[in-house]
Amino acid sequence: MNAALDNIRVVLVGTLYTGNVGSACRAMANMGIHHLRLAAPNLQNSWEEGERLAVHAIDILHAREEFASLEEAVADCVAVVGTTAREGLYRQHVKAPRDCAADILSLAETGPVALVFGREDKGLLNDEIAQCTHLIRIPVDEGYTSINLAQAVLITCYEFFAASGSYQPPREKAPPTPQAQKMQLMKNWAKMLVEIGFMKEEQTDHFMQGFHRVFSRGVFTKDDAALMLGVARQAVWAKQKAAAASV
Amino acid sequence: MNAALDNIRVVLVGTLYTGNVGSACRAMANMGIHHLRLAAPNLQNSWEEGERLAVHAIDILHAREEFASLEEAVADCVAVVGTTAREGLYRQHVKAPRDCAADILSLAETGPVALVFGREDKGLLNDEIAQCTHLIRIPVDEGYTSINLAQAVLITCYEFFAASGSYQPPREKAPPTPQAQKMQLMKNWAKMLVEIGFMKEEQTDHFMQGFHRVFSRGVFTKDDAALMLGVARQAVWAKQKAAAASV
Repeated sequence: MNAALDNIRVVLVGTLYTGNVGSACRAMANMGIHHLRLAAPNLQNSWEEGERLAVHAIDILHAREEFASLEEAVADCVAVVGTTAREGLYRQHVKAPRDCAADILSLAETGPVALVFGREDKGLLNDEIAQCTHLIRIPVDEGYTSINLAQAVLITCYEFFAASGSYQPPREKAPPTPQAQKMQLMKNWAKMLVEIGFMKEEQTDHFMQGFHRVFSRGVFTKDDAALMLGVARQAVWAKQKAAAASV
Repeated sequence: MNAALDNIRVVLVGTLYTGNVGSACRAMANMGIHHLRLAAPNLQNSWEEGERLAVHAIDILHAREEFASLEEAVADCVAVVGTTAREGLYRQHVKAPRDCAADILSLAETGPVALVFGREDKGLLNDEIAQCTHLIRIPVDEGYTSINLAQAVLITCYEFFAASGSYQPPREKAPPTPQAQKMQLMKNWAKMLVEIGFMKEEQTDHFMQGFHRVFSRGVFTKDDAALMLGVARQAVWAKQKAAAASV
């Protein structure tokens, strides 16, 4: 559990559809963020859809806190981060989430930080924007700027998760092959390719440049090298065995 | 229209629910990606939900191409990028989308590139993974690693959109205030604060360090400086006018 992420409060203002709340819960859980607040919810359908879409993040949905207004929902927060898709006088200092998540997360180490998302149809109103200490706008294609509420929650939480250092790029389990093993591989392949008649000995330099190119794309692991060494060994063995049999 | 993004094909394999297809269409449109392919779709409900959730990305849904298998769906592609949440022998060389999107997008400048997403319940099968030239895994919290199909499409497309350079961080419209204006602001405030009796002249250095701290948080624009200069001017004027009236 990352302490700063645990201080994040996702605050949905005036939300209309329970499905978006449920999908937001799942997105939050995927990104290690667990505290949901609803401010002045205006739900138009039953919780059935919301509970279905929350799937295994149902505990976040059930533990939600509800408030009569945004003001009450963020009263204990040291930073209030509004999300907006629109332009306007009071929305000039917006940043992309990737460009400010790390700074805001530092604030979350000192106290609760609200990530605030507006209504599906109208977003955050000017008097709600005025309560925000930070504003973010998710970069989107100008051909379709209206992003679904739960999708906006996902990308925002994803950027905070990434900024928290919890973002662990997967690592190849096999170590990369050392240069000596690569050179051994090229040497054994050259021998094998001559032995099976793929190339003449004097063509070695020419053809091996081509194989070097193939074997040098991206990282070559010890497992990869062992596999290709096995091919060379077996081809030589098969050819020599066949030759011996035909004598 | 970014040419490389336009070469991206989102390929959904064996998808079960039209709602996920519709939500994926909207996520694609938000990120400037417009070509959808369904491989061996296994849809369990009507298109009504899918069309509702596609909203204004309905054109992507209607223009989708359908194929009997993944093999046919990616036959023309120069790179086949599989997404996987699972670990396993054939899934060791996965990368996070942020770490490989730029390289893969370079390939998309040369021809169609498939981003492949598996079934809601079982993901991509081993024989499908075997057809992929690249594998990516979205970093998620280990407490809840199962990510919704449309949410996975969104984050992947978001990373390719970001890598395309179409990601334009919003810029503050007012320029930052130049140092000379900042110094003028401090000078006028110091005068005003003595004039209204907030501090004595000899306390100026001490108090102005505090105000300097307040005015130095983040970027201070010309508009911000003009606003605060106005406060100083008005406070001095109001005090002098009241003093004159009381004589």
